[in-house]
Amino acid sequence: MNAPRIKRLAVIGVGLIGGSLARALREAGAVDEIIGAGRDPARLQQAIDLGVIDAHTTSTAEACADADMVVLAVPVGEMRAIFESLRPVLTDAMTITDVGSTKGNVLDAASAVFGAVPPNFVPGHPIAGTEKSGVGASFAGLFKHRRVILTPTEWTSTDALQRVRAMWQAVGADVVETSVAHHDEVLAATSHLPHMLAYALVDTLARMNDSREIFDYAAGGFRDFTRIASSNPAMWHDICFANRDALLQMMQRFITDLEQLAAAIRAGDSDYLLQTFERAKQARDDFCAQQGNETLSPE
Amino acid sequence: MNAPRIKRLAVIGVGLIGGSLARALREAGAVDEIIGAGRDPARLQQAIDLGVIDAHTTSTAEACADADMVVLAVPVGEMRAIFESLRPVLTDAMTITDVGSTKGNVLDAASAVFGAVPPNFVPGHPIAGTEKSGVGASFAGLFKHRRVILTPTEWTSTDALQRVRAMWQAVGADVVETSVAHHDEVLAATSHLPHMLAYALVDTLARMNDSREIFDYAAGGFRDFTRIASSNPAMWHDICFANRDALLQMMQRFITDLEQLAAAIRAGDSDYLLQTFERAKQARDDFCAQQGNETLSPE
Repeated sequence: MNAPRIKRLAVIGVGLIGGSLARALREAGAVDEIIGAGRDPARLQQAIDLGVIDAHTTSTAEACADADMVVLAVPVGEMRAIFESLRPVLTDAMTITDVGSTKGNVLDAASAVFGAVPPNFVPGHPIAGTEKSGVGASFAGLFKHRRVILTPTEWTSTDALQRVRAMWQAVGADVVETSVAHHDEVLAATSHLPHMLAYALVDTLARMNDSREIFDYAAGGFRDFTRIASSNPAMWHDICFANRDALLQMMQRFITDLEQLAAAIRAGDSDYLLQTFERAKQARDDFCAQQGNETLSPE
Repeated sequence: MNAPRIKRLAVIGVGLIGGSLARALREAGAVDEIIGAGRDPARLQQAIDLGVIDAHTTSTAEACADADMVVLAVPVGEMRAIFESLRPVLTDAMTITDVGSTKGNVLDAASAVFGAVPPNFVPGHPIAGTEKSGVGASFAGLFKHRRVILTPTEWTSTDALQRVRAMWQAVGADVVETSVAHHDEVLAATSHLPHMLAYALVDTLARMNDSREIFDYAAGGFRDFTRIASSNPAMWHDICFANRDALLQMMQRFITDLEQLAAAIRAGDSDYLLQTFERAKQARDDFCAQQGNETLSPE
């Protein structure tokens, strides 16, 4: 690894992702000192007690002041406020990145606050996580063999991009680059839409009259299928609005397809059903064969 | 266990469920001899080689002739043809049950073939399975701590009901009884609808232009969420038509709820999103707490 060692890492938002990155960088010997920032001193103290961070503050500016690497790991709806706090202490000596699940709105927030996206800000998104949240659920292995998508702009500095890339590689991630728009479209399809389906399904059943009995009769498949409905509601609230256009387009596409499937069941169209199910099974089996077991979420 | 030992068990359809039941009954020492019937001699030979059954035949009548317990483990769309084959050899000395995922249409098929549902036929449904199929995927522990729903009619003999109940208890299942209509409604909600969503989601993504890249960027949550899209297409084709009314009603209810969620995202209705996600998370967390780890599907 030819990456310069991180001297002072500021983690803004020490939850599942921020906490796991701090743990992993420390385990890899890639960082000297880690400062955590957040709103809740009790949770920051928990992060200290767990050995995840070395010091804490409720001031973003204070945490970032002398940091050479700043990681923004707050829900995407809070990014703009964090950028505001960061502005007074921003220098060319620091590299900034984020872990937000949407990228377009984070860049919009940066432009709005700084006038333009700073060259030393490298937007990023680790495709990793569990349905759990909070620093208590963090662990160093979270990013191993997981993909991290970076979406540099035309103004992003090569040096900052290289530093962020090296940071993720140091914790075992597989780093790729794509455009902001493409990231947001692909994630709407593979992550945001599935979360909407899981939340909507569990909620539909929970609001039925005999919901207690319904959940009583559900099997293991239902448990797997709905796991992501246990995800953090506030975080997903933010993601829905942050990626609204791409998400709404995918939801509409899905509703149309589901209506067509219902029409085929109503019409007794055997061929349509068999073709749809077989195409889906093939795609899903191919997906698993390609990924192997590496991407299985820990539970 | 005060259940009379099964002398000759006929398993019609030696796949994941039929094969697992045969293995489990043998392991429990609850059966003397097991005859498997099916259409494909090569697969039946595989079941013999695996020690799952003792003998095989492609004739349902032959398999059932001297059996005191007959288990129908074929896709629900094939039940009527199996009842036709069974009719010439049906006697009061045999107890018959099935493992179909829908119950109304199986009873309709029995009524159509026999004139009325025979008193020694006990409709049943083990809430167990994996996305895999075939006797190669069968294992003795599949039904341990899993629920088996029996839907006896007013004509069902107490003796036959007791024998089927004892058979499932012998393999570690938790046996409950409910009405046919209630079974089909509850299963439409907890199993049939989720399967439609998983198939439709994977198919929607597979038909997008950049589907290769889309699956490339999908994470562990997507893998869990879509696991049931790897289920047997022919079996699910049958289930869709067998439980058409209840399934279509659930699909319509879900589409309405998903459209409302999309409208809330479009309108920027924070409260609606937070309430929906929180209600769903709560219901899902309660469901898991209630079930413990017992019902986790093996993989």
